[in-house]
Amino acid sequence: MPVDPNATAEVTAFRWVPPFAEGLVRDIRIRWALEEIERPYRVRLIDAMSPRPPEYFLEQPFGQVPCYRNDEVQLFESGAILIHLAISEERLLPFDRAARMRSVAWMIAALNSVEPAILELANIDIFNRGEGWTKERRPQVIEKIQARLKHVSDALGEQEWFEGRFSIADIMMVTVLRNLRHTTLVAEQPNLAAYVARGEARPAFQRALADQLAVFAQHQPEPEGEAA
Amino acid sequence: MPVDPNATAEVTAFRWVPPFAEGLVRDIRIRWALEEIERPYRVRLIDAMSPRPPEYFLEQPFGQVPCYRNDEVQLFESGAILIHLAISEERLLPFDRAARMRSVAWMIAALNSVEPAILELANIDIFNRGEGWTKERRPQVIEKIQARLKHVSDALGEQEWFEGRFSIADIMMVTVLRNLRHTTLVAEQPNLAAYVARGEARPAFQRALADQLAVFAQHQPEPEGEAA
Repeated sequence: MPVDPNATAEVTAFRWVPPFAEGLVRDIRIRWALEEIERPYRVRLIDAMSPRPPEYFLEQPFGQVPCYRNDEVQLFESGAILIHLAISEERLLPFDRAARMRSVAWMIAALNSVEPAILELANIDIFNRGEGWTKERRPQVIEKIQARLKHVSDALGEQEWFEGRFSIADIMMVTVLRNLRHTTLVAEQPNLAAYVARGEARPAFQRALADQLAVFAQHQPEPEGEAA
Repeated sequence: MPVDPNATAEVTAFRWVPPFAEGLVRDIRIRWALEEIERPYRVRLIDAMSPRPPEYFLEQPFGQVPCYRNDEVQLFESGAILIHLAISEERLLPFDRAARMRSVAWMIAALNSVEPAILELANIDIFNRGEGWTKERRPQVIEKIQARLKHVSDALGEQEWFEGRFSIADIMMVTVLRNLRHTTLVAEQPNLAAYVARGEARPAFQRALADQLAVFAQHQPEPEGEAA
């Protein structure tokens, strides 16, 4: 099993998050990639519910997770960490240069052409839930996401994975699309729904998910103010 | 001069955009990188103001610019194109692997940790200008951008460029921050303002900008309905 307290490689992850974020925190992308290539890593836990210690910003400029480090690199941004892990691992990225760059393009598309609208919806549905402005804005964001997903669906077509083989493009796209699990937007594009399900069915994803959730279960806060 | 109708490499760009987008369209990132390494390219123009022809989506799944192709690759997403151009060009990316991956991390941070909030502000100030929801939402987005820029400013510190030397991280970060030119948000962080000015002062940026603007000037639409 990749999670190993004595491993050289270290990934930062949150100790506990509220249920809406369970299984969605971005260290899952790195855990998944590491599981695919059977490379051991240890986990360093960060408290998501308190301000980050100032020194953490030296590792992750925005105070987020994941960071990744081993004896060679110290990195932040899940997209950069995935490229680093994939660069000499054909299981994560084709060696042929043209194909390799196409997979990188799809990975970056997930981060910059698909995720921003999805994050806007998360603000509306979760972080700013119930605020007046969200009612007027929500239909516009839904429409934007639908348009983007239609393009993603058209490009995927009947392929099993982007560019015809599993790569970090799929790790990124599947984990980005999972942020829509509280909606039916992915289900509106049957090939995308099947694609996400294929990603989630991979044993490496299942192990990564179980490991992220196990940490949260272990650090579940005590219910407050409940009378005996 | 890199723009050369007979070049093998091709970049797509818009024929004309309204003034708010002049100098900001993302082909500027690729033009800038190509100018830095003195590599010739030809430009293929796409009409921004009409629906894209269906076949363009086969090149760019979201119908955007830029696409890049030469005899080796066919790519979309400015971040992926920059990585491709930089991969064997030390002028754009250090060769040392740890330093190289840090620069890629900063490039992706610009795309995924900085740009999304800036795009949200562009929706409020430009694309959805005057809609009721924007009044309530705008201060929240400003606050989010301020927090992110503070982190970027802290990480840059007194360095001239991210990670101590010019790279595609700076091409991306400078062009992302330029999308705030209609605000004083960058000016609130003096080291960031100086950083953007340093980027804009580079001769390669100046040539890239002039070439993007020249196309728009050449294709300026005729004013409609003006009586003689």
